[in-house]
Amino acid sequence: MLRVGMLTSGGDCQSLNATMRGVAKTLYSSGKDVEIIGFIDGYKGLMYGDYKVMKPQDFSGILTEGGTILGTSRQPFKLMRTPDAEGRDKVEEMKKTYNRLKLDCLVVLGGNGSQKTSNLLSAEGLNVIGLPKTIDNDLWGTDMTFGFQSAVNIATNAIDCIHTTAASHGRVFIVEIMGHKVGWLTLHAGIAGGADIILLPEIPYDIKKIAKALDKRAKEGKRFSIIAVAEGAISKEDAALSKKEYKKKLAERPYPSVSYELGAQILETTGQEVRVTVPGHMQRGGEPCPYDRVLSSRLGATAGSMILKKEYGNLVCLKDGEIIGVPLSEIAGKLKSVDPDCSMIREAKAMGISFGD
Amino acid sequence: MLRVGMLTSGGDCQSLNATMRGVAKTLYSSGKDVEIIGFIDGYKGLMYGDYKVMKPQDFSGILTEGGTILGTSRQPFKLMRTPDAEGRDKVEEMKKTYNRLKLDCLVVLGGNGSQKTSNLLSAEGLNVIGLPKTIDNDLWGTDMTFGFQSAVNIATNAIDCIHTTAASHGRVFIVEIMGHKVGWLTLHAGIAGGADIILLPEIPYDIKKIAKALDKRAKEGKRFSIIAVAEGAISKEDAALSKKEYKKKLAERPYPSVSYELGAQILETTGQEVRVTVPGHMQRGGEPCPYDRVLSSRLGATAGSMILKKEYGNLVCLKDGEIIGVPLSEIAGKLKSVDPDCSMIREAKAMGISFGD
Amino acid sequence: MLRVGMLTSGGDCQSLNATMRGVAKTLYSSGKDVEIIGFIDGYKGLMYGDYKVMKPQDFSGILTEGGTILGTSRQPFKLMRTPDAEGRDKVEEMKKTYNRLKLDCLVVLGGNGSQKTSNLLSAEGLNVIGLPKTIDNDLWGTDMTFGFQSAVNIATNAIDCIHTTAASHGRVFIVEIMGHKVGWLTLHAGIAGGADIILLPEIPYDIKKIAKALDKRAKEGKRFSIIAVAEGAISKEDAALSKKEYKKKLAERPYPSVSYELGAQILETTGQEVRVTVPGHMQRGGEPCPYDRVLSSRLGATAGSMILKKEYGNLVCLKDGEIIGVPLSEIAGKLKSVDPDCSMIREAKAMGISFGD
Amino acid sequence: MLRVGMLTSGGDCQSLNATMRGVAKTLYSSGKDVEIIGFIDGYKGLMYGDYKVMKPQDFSGILTEGGTILGTSRQPFKLMRTPDAEGRDKVEEMKKTYNRLKLDCLVVLGGNGSQKTSNLLSAEGLNVIGLPKTIDNDLWGTDMTFGFQSAVNIATNAIDCIHTTAASHGRVFIVEIMGHKVGWLTLHAGIAGGADIILLPEIPYDIKKIAKALDKRAKEGKRFSIIAVAEGAISKEDAALSKKEYKKKLAERPYPSVSYELGAQILETTGQEVRVTVPGHMQRGGEPCPYDRVLSSRLGATAGSMILKKEYGNLVCLKDGEIIGVPLSEIAGKLKSVDPDCSMIREAKAMGISFGD
Repeated sequence: MLRVGMLTSGGDCQSLNATMRGVAKTLYSSGKDVEIIGFIDGYKGLMYGDYKVMKPQDFSGILTEGGTILGTSRQPFKLMRTPDAEGRDKVEEMKKTYNRLKLDCLVVLGGNGSQKTSNLLSAEGLNVIGLPKTIDNDLWGTDMTFGFQSAVNIATNAIDCIHTTAASHGRVFIVEIMGHKVGWLTLHAGIAGGADIILLPEIPYDIKKIAKALDKRAKEGKRFSIIAVAEGAISKEDAALSKKEYKKKLAERPYPSVSYELGAQILETTGQEVRVTVPGHMQRGGEPCPYDRVLSSRLGATAGSMILKKEYGNLVCLKDGEIIGVPLSEIAGKLKSVDPDCSMIREAKAMGISFGD
Repeated sequence: MLRVGMLTSGGDCQSLNATMRGVAKTLYSSGKDVEIIGFIDGYKGLMYGDYKVMKPQDFSGILTEGGTILGTSRQPFKLMRTPDAEGRDKVEEMKKTYNRLKLDCLVVLGGNGSQKTSNLLSAEGLNVIGLPKTIDNDLWGTDMTFGFQSAVNIATNAIDCIHTTAASHGRVFIVEIMGHKVGWLTLHAGIAGGADIILLPEIPYDIKKIAKALDKRAKEGKRFSIIAVAEGAISKEDAALSKKEYKKKLAERPYPSVSYELGAQILETTGQEVRVTVPGHMQRGGEPCPYDRVLSSRLGATAGSMILKKEYGNLVCLKDGEIIGVPLSEIAGKLKSVDPDCSMIREAKAMGISFGD
Repeated sequence: MLRVGMLTSGGDCQSLNATMRGVAKTLYSSGKDVEIIGFIDGYKGLMYGDYKVMKPQDFSGILTEGGTILGTSRQPFKLMRTPDAEGRDKVEEMKKTYNRLKLDCLVVLGGNGSQKTSNLLSAEGLNVIGLPKTIDNDLWGTDMTFGFQSAVNIATNAIDCIHTTAASHGRVFIVEIMGHKVGWLTLHAGIAGGADIILLPEIPYDIKKIAKALDKRAKEGKRFSIIAVAEGAISKEDAALSKKEYKKKLAERPYPSVSYELGAQILETTGQEVRVTVPGHMQRGGEPCPYDRVLSSRLGATAGSMILKKEYGNLVCLKDGEIIGVPLSEIAGKLKSVDPDCSMIREAKAMGISFGD
Repeated sequence: MLRVGMLTSGGDCQSLNATMRGVAKTLYSSGKDVEIIGFIDGYKGLMYGDYKVMKPQDFSGILTEGGTILGTSRQPFKLMRTPDAEGRDKVEEMKKTYNRLKLDCLVVLGGNGSQKTSNLLSAEGLNVIGLPKTIDNDLWGTDMTFGFQSAVNIATNAIDCIHTTAASHGRVFIVEIMGHKVGWLTLHAGIAGGADIILLPEIPYDIKKIAKALDKRAKEGKRFSIIAVAEGAISKEDAALSKKEYKKKLAERPYPSVSYELGAQILETTGQEVRVTVPGHMQRGGEPCPYDRVLSSRLGATAGSMILKKEYGNLVCLKDGEIIGVPLSEIAGKLKSVDPDCSMIREAKAMGISFGD
């Protein structure tokens, strides 16, 4: 009997169910005697022993369903990144549940924070396999995380919708796009949506450069401009601050997010009226796109095969078209951010897109 | 030679081009000698004589395009609702352009404000035909405005996306939906998206009733609740205020919109954490849905036929499946709001949806 | 205890689950003691006593799901339209199941054939409520059936996709659209998709008129033409045949459907190459659109309220925006087809669309 | 003055305009004096000197538009693959136009056949840059062609729609997917759509293995099965025939395509009723998806940069995330087909998907 624990951790995204289905179908198809234990609400379920024994039909019909059939939560593992006393206790609780249920391994679908914890559990001797979940695409080791392309579709659709209004009314429109501390989602959706200016956390912006880009468009007779702004975008001034100063400034900022601040800066600098749209949580919801369903099936199938071969301790990654394992210890704590000088940025600049730098 | 002026006024919406195409195709197909003059940016174009002579191919391929090929603007006709001296001057300017271009008639695609102005121009002796444009569906006289069903699709999709996140994380989610002072868009999208609570401007809400509805769901074991809130929703307390007091309160309100205020009230009353999503301007953008394309084609074709028959002074309306003309004088200044006791509300309540009343 | 049987019969369509959810939510919200019995695979389940006792959670999360959670089948009621000996036996079996389960009533979601049977059961003394299911929109008594607008979306999308290819390559493209013996789906999708020629069963086509319409477009410099053809479209020659002759001709027809025959006729008459696309079964599948979800919720809620008030023997219908009951005896056996002289056809003709007549 | 010719050749696909926009924006943003000549309807335009001088605004607003603003054609270059006398003449005509217009280079958006011709022109001394257009993804040298992911979306959506019907009615459904002689599109859409059996040209199928897979599902209590079949799929028997024998058999085949033949084989072998859906040309139409828009922008921008650097004779390719040039002489005449033993096939098999082998 092969006993496999599974959990989804952190903010949900679109292809979690498709990925779990890939693992499950592979295990059930192996001909071995397999039992899958689903932990409820992420690491919480592992900690408190809250789980359900899954049946094959639980994984039927979920390929196209957003969210996670296991539920998820964000909170408990924050402490565990640097396991203090409380964190240690939590880790011990998780180990107890793992051992009590006689698990052969634990499959963790999660992002950067969650995989830090999975690496910790792996270091503690648990057999762990990680699967790279996040709309942010910021997991080190993999070319692509699942959820990302689905989120690109929603963010791009938001820009597409704004485009018709912008063209009809002739204004500057800002669309604020998710992505936490990295700019992948904004970069892709910005290019796909035909944004004129794209602002990323990795390339602090200069309001004068933005004003210049807007002026240039106005001079060319363009009625409107679209700016795609990452939620983590930052001005050159703010980027020059110390972490403490910046935190203080953020706390005192009169605007709900960088987009509104930028809108005010543009009005002040250019006199142009600006409208802000923030699609927000929508970007992590709804049905996974076909690209994600394929990627998730491949990642899940490979995770299943690794379990059957008892290959543990890896994050399952897409690398140059192939699915491979990368040691959790190599990827934990590393952030995959956008290189300001990467080819994609250079290509976008060649097309005349301004990055405000 | 039949000379027809055309303009799109007010906030843009999804099926403006499809509607203009319907008018144009009908006129060009009539075999008569027709010239269509497109005024740029709404009434502004009529006022300042800013226009272009349209060609048949200008109306080709625009059936599926959002926005308006003529551009639109909101500002100049605010004054004209009660034409003071400045408003009068503007009306005179419009009449001058109309006469100078020897127009046989003027087609106005617009919402409530714009049709007030079109009624004024009609009363001044211009031959005017109105077409009911708005995602708010608040135009008196027509069962349905074009743009509405496309906006329902976008707002429903926002709720759908939030649904998967809500189900995965188990929280209260508010989705704020457009609609100006009426609740049509929120009512339809709320039912279509399976919202548990729907709050409309026409039914002031009682926070205690909302808390009770949320409690009931929690007791039934539901992990999450979705609240669809119209941007114009109002609490019972605020609805009891005088207009002046309410304006003052709004000005002082620490929240950017009713959704955030409601979120704070729910947190305070129930202790439940709330997330707010505001899709905003997206709701009026993008491609018109097939329903709107059919409605717009029918409205446009009928407007074209009315022009050929010299029937002027009407808003072209959908009434019980037929397209008819309703005198602009009958509809101007009237708002079609949701009757709190209409059958659709009763049906929604029968299904267990709470309206917070 | 209120015991309600429910079944879905005939070809599936998009909003069956949303409709059942509407009935169930209304019954469960009534505070009464309710048990819903779901019969498997339509009337077959009623005949053979194949059913499951439903729970409230069975109706959760199905608002957006296509297909039917109860399964459906087409076969057994063909005979029952004119109940011969075998049909009589089947009716008796159904009555037995109904009585054995002590049902208070039976809710039938079905199209024309299925509602003939539901009327028969009603005449036999069973308490029956019908709900108008079909993508064909051909049920007498209701302005709109659920499933129709979702199918319009898919058929229109097919035309939209073909449009870009047609424009790039410059050819005549035929898109064959479902609808059984009526043209509603083709009429709506044809107008929404900007088809140049629309062929319906209700308006037999003259190949010479089609050739003329194609010529006219070519002369106007248009590179391509799109023809939306109902699967039940028929030429003037074939329409003049006796039923027997036509059946014989159909049996000998070398083409798989009317579209291919028409394509051959066009090639022969005009020399223009024609491509045919047949989206087929896709049109009844996938997620219900927001319009259908609202309609289904309203129809279902009203059916639920009728059950609570013991109002039986009706098809629940949409009439001028209100949901009403129409006696099954009034609608059974009647087909709602497109009136060739209705306003919508006239509007389409005014826009220059040819119907081949 | 830099004079750049551009043409789109072969069957159209979704992201042609986005790609041309990428080239144009890059050239116009370079600050150099650039003139772009657009040839009408592919190589025909080059042959007959049918072209238009493009303006920057011609490339505005086309990022999201399917089809090609230049038109395309398939015919004239068939001969040119092995340039006989007639082919030679055509090549000479093209060279004449190229020289007469004093072009600095020619940009060819096309698939396998078209790039054979572009390689020929390059060998003749013309400065040529190729861009990999096709929904088939069968171009050697690039990891991904533009159009492919958009087509995957449409084909997957077709399977999704069929899924709900299959689940409701309980039958075997075949969805026939495009892809010419290769299985990429079917492989991706099949996995994304959750197909149970996937049949590719590269893996000849054994009807007995298919029957076995269907039986296995039936035994597991599954009501339905979905088979994704590539239009170029072939049985083991047919694959064993000589080319001549196979052509003869195809000519005599009573079925319009492999799907219908397979359906008949399944009925005969298993007694199960089968329904076939053929979305057909739809798969190359409609709006490009965000993935394709990003890929096209990157490819186009790189082509533009290559022109500015006078790097000619390459197909612009995506390789491991980077955009690079691969000599046309290296890729011409080679087909990128699915390796039956590639990791993606193995992953799909691990999940229990049958390939009929």
